[in-house]
Amino acid sequence: MSATAIFDPVQSDLQVVEDTLRRAGSVDYPLLASFLEHVLSARGKRVRPALVLLSASFHEYRLEYLVPLAAAIELLHMATLVHDDLIDNASTRRGVPTLHSFTSKAATVLVGDYLFAKAAALCTETESVRVMRVFGEALMTICDGELKQLFTAGFWRQSPEEYYAKIERKTASLLRTATETGAILSGAPESWISTFRSYGYNLGMAFQIVDDILDFVGNEQKMGKPVGSDLRQGMITLPTIYLLEEDPDNASIRAIFDDVDTSDEAIQRAVGDVLGSRAIERSVAEARRFARLALDQIATLPDTPSRRALEQLTDYVVERGQ
Amino acid sequence: MSATAIFDPVQSDLQVVEDTLRRAGSVDYPLLASFLEHVLSARGKRVRPALVLLSASFHEYRLEYLVPLAAAIELLHMATLVHDDLIDNASTRRGVPTLHSFTSKAATVLVGDYLFAKAAALCTETESVRVMRVFGEALMTICDGELKQLFTAGFWRQSPEEYYAKIERKTASLLRTATETGAILSGAPESWISTFRSYGYNLGMAFQIVDDILDFVGNEQKMGKPVGSDLRQGMITLPTIYLLEEDPDNASIRAIFDDVDTSDEAIQRAVGDVLGSRAIERSVAEARRFARLALDQIATLPDTPSRRALEQLTDYVVERGQ
Repeated sequence: MSATAIFDPVQSDLQVVEDTLRRAGSVDYPLLASFLEHVLSARGKRVRPALVLLSASFHEYRLEYLVPLAAAIELLHMATLVHDDLIDNASTRRGVPTLHSFTSKAATVLVGDYLFAKAAALCTETESVRVMRVFGEALMTICDGELKQLFTAGFWRQSPEEYYAKIERKTASLLRTATETGAILSGAPESWISTFRSYGYNLGMAFQIVDDILDFVGNEQKMGKPVGSDLRQGMITLPTIYLLEEDPDNASIRAIFDDVDTSDEAIQRAVGDVLGSRAIERSVAEARRFARLALDQIATLPDTPSRRALEQLTDYVVERGQ
Repeated sequence: MSATAIFDPVQSDLQVVEDTLRRAGSVDYPLLASFLEHVLSARGKRVRPALVLLSASFHEYRLEYLVPLAAAIELLHMATLVHDDLIDNASTRRGVPTLHSFTSKAATVLVGDYLFAKAAALCTETESVRVMRVFGEALMTICDGELKQLFTAGFWRQSPEEYYAKIERKTASLLRTATETGAILSGAPESWISTFRSYGYNLGMAFQIVDDILDFVGNEQKMGKPVGSDLRQGMITLPTIYLLEEDPDNASIRAIFDDVDTSDEAIQRAVGDVLGSRAIERSVAEARRFARLALDQIATLPDTPSRRALEQLTDYVVERGQ
């Protein structure tokens, strides 16, 4: 089942979100408009907007507030991608050239800032102080995560706990924000809000672990980036942590991090060592564990098409890693 | 009279804002903390926080909401400076080395993002949807202004109106936001809110015009940057626009913009031409006109120490250009 089919219950509303995102790219300067068009059209699956809408659909579903919120969260996500790609000096994302690969760093910084600003402005259209507070905290958390990543890059002795703290900030916090704020805006009772919050968090953790697994086992063409790109950037993820638990002095990893040999051969050797160990199997088990926790959260929700969509999404997130 | 003396009526509360700003720089990573400390300690005159406090002091003065707002606006200002300096590739600001001059571009982008995020998070502590909306719009306007500046740099045929549209976004919008949100938080009636809004706007316009005059007539040591630095960056400001009104084909300006000769000699020749024309005199008159409009706005406020501080600040802004 594709992510698009999963989102069936909110498909037409997602189109309204899409229109709002397009309008965010309508600006006075033709060059900027073309940059924004480039960023906005490299569309992902719109998982975050869908989570907002699905999480709000169990109570009062007020589209006029949900659409700006969903668009705000997606724009915040895009803003972080634009700055991330600049920081990582990535030349493509999902096979599409990144913004800074064909324009100046200056323009890229500003386009990211513009997306942040537009996200904040759209968020205020929810007219909910609480939603804005959660949104502001998410923004802080994400920045904190990126800083953590930057300042710990190259340290290869990391524990699973350090890794979890990092992916919570980097990914799970925004998925959690999507589900939590969707529930808040729907006027759900507190216990439901925390159900959705916890669902989003666990889904996000599973999502990122699978992403990090795919960096080792994925199809280069499908992912639009070569395998081992995390290692190439000095980033330690769960599979590498597990490899190092089995083989603490692994020579391939040592070559990359101590000798800073990031040649294709060095990366390929390290990827091969990961694949030859139990690292992937154990990482998949962890992704499944978080997915299970996510499913447990929503097990008591009414049996609606939205709940089934959330369940299918959870399965999809883990299965794409197989 | 110094700016610090002018802010006497709110001096002790400004110290509370200062403490909040310091706390914003207390983070887990020693390296990041040192970067933030660097940015936060290169302190300006805290004009924006003072404007928030002074504008709120005519009605209900609720420090617990005003302090996070004042800090949020100053942090937003700092965030734009950090990214601006990166974009302009400036090596110093007020004589102090800019962040990216001694660390990576990546860290600089993220420190700016962190300051944006912290600003947004602090703003939500006001618990006022309206304040957050105005704040979000200001953020959009400032980004729009920076983009406008980036995409029109090098176009030297600009009208005063285009220049005004640019400095409104770049500078006046945030001063206007400071006075407007201060008044909103104090529960001032609508007519007062628009008085403060208009005061902040006109003060901001005067402020930026004087800044742009100082780039031609200022003392290099005091400003911490060489004269003519705007021209060197391909930026046309009011004095140059007036020079070109007198002498549309001025050879010095043409050399800079058409032949892209930004040697010291070329810049010095252009600065000399501006000083030899009526451009500075006319620019000062414009700054005075905006300052007069600012003073007109607050003329009907009760005669309190805060009103006198706002008047003195307006005079100070224009006089420092003399």
